[in-house]
Amino acid sequence: MIQQKEITLPAFGRGYHIITGIIEEHLSELPETGIMNVFIKHTSAALTINENADPSVRDDFESTLNDLVPEDNRRYTHTMEGSDDMPAHIKSSLLGPSLTIPITGGQLNLGTWQGIFLCEFRNHQHRRKLVLTIYA
Amino acid sequence: MIQQKEITLPAFGRGYHIITGIIEEHLSELPETGIMNVFIKHTSAALTINENADPSVRDDFESTLNDLVPEDNRRYTHTMEGSDDMPAHIKSSLLGPSLTIPITGGQLNLGTWQGIFLCEFRNHQHRRKLVLTIYA
Amino acid sequence: MIQQKEITLPAFGRGYHIITGIIEEHLSELPETGIMNVFIKHTSAALTINENADPSVRDDFESTLNDLVPEDNRRYTHTMEGSDDMPAHIKSSLLGPSLTIPITGGQLNLGTWQGIFLCEFRNHQHRRKLVLTIYA
Repeated sequence: MIQQKEITLPAFGRGYHIITGIIEEHLSELPETGIMNVFIKHTSAALTINENADPSVRDDFESTLNDLVPEDNRRYTHTMEGSDDMPAHIKSSLLGPSLTIPITGGQLNLGTWQGIFLCEFRNHQHRRKLVLTIYA
Repeated sequence: MIQQKEITLPAFGRGYHIITGIIEEHLSELPETGIMNVFIKHTSAALTINENADPSVRDDFESTLNDLVPEDNRRYTHTMEGSDDMPAHIKSSLLGPSLTIPITGGQLNLGTWQGIFLCEFRNHQHRRKLVLTIYA
Repeated sequence: MIQQKEITLPAFGRGYHIITGIIEEHLSELPETGIMNVFIKHTSAALTINENADPSVRDDFESTLNDLVPEDNRRYTHTMEGSDDMPAHIKSSLLGPSLTIPITGGQLNLGTWQGIFLCEFRNHQHRRKLVLTIYA
């Protein structure tokens, strides 16, 4: 059994945003046992799983990834779309475009502290498209 | 056909540990052709695949990831759980919470030099929970 | 329904190479709805998804990842296979060994600007092995 749904997220600004609840709202009925794949159809945003409790974790993601992949790198040659563009491409590959999460007992089997993050790397708000695929 | 199993690993200290054999011991019978997903239910540890032969590779992972995501970054605001905590969150997203590995001929179809690493980023030993899901 | 195929890519030199077309040529008939997993059987090369249009993006990946994981790090202890070897192991775990991509309407459901990159981290050309697994 396979189910698939393409959704468009609400607009989010630059930063790390917990979207576990938004994804769950789109999943009317999960199988007893299975897998969910979430795929983002963009190259300047990413998906990751991290702490769902203290918002300071998301703030520190923003500053740490900015330190790792700085915007003022003079080596960049792909600069026509703004100084936030090339770092966004690198960050999106470091964090990755998809997540595969087990489904157990009819629910996403995340750890207690795990939430799904949308990572928006561009300065301006975007509405990002996701493909949800569920296997059972 | 789908099989799923939640397992608890033995306690491992900070560092990179090959757990291919431990995972295989929990898989009594693999299908002829399929996929295995391994998911870690934590936000300060990760899973990756890398060289299974020379232990110096795992030592160099420890020092290189520590250089990339240093503990003494004064920008961190999420500091209540110790200086190893916020770097652990960042590292866990850089390396990722899950692996999807093909099964061929009734075995994990890893390359000759590939092993599954548990990446433990906290200073103290932890027993980490994994969910193994097998599709055929 | 599950289909699986092991393929050997043409030789590629160090850098980031779009292989979407090569992969699609090996997939004679895709299901209407499903998932494709692509797995690379090596620890000094990786797979990622990023911009498929402007080649300057791939050039900037090369220089940026080299800055992130430099070859002249004196802390490396795994040095017998050359100065490009240990950085290749680290980069392969940062970008990851596999991709899971939805199939919709009989085609890979990639975003407009998304292409599949083979990331070759070694100096010399290699012919890398991939396992393609398709679920429907």
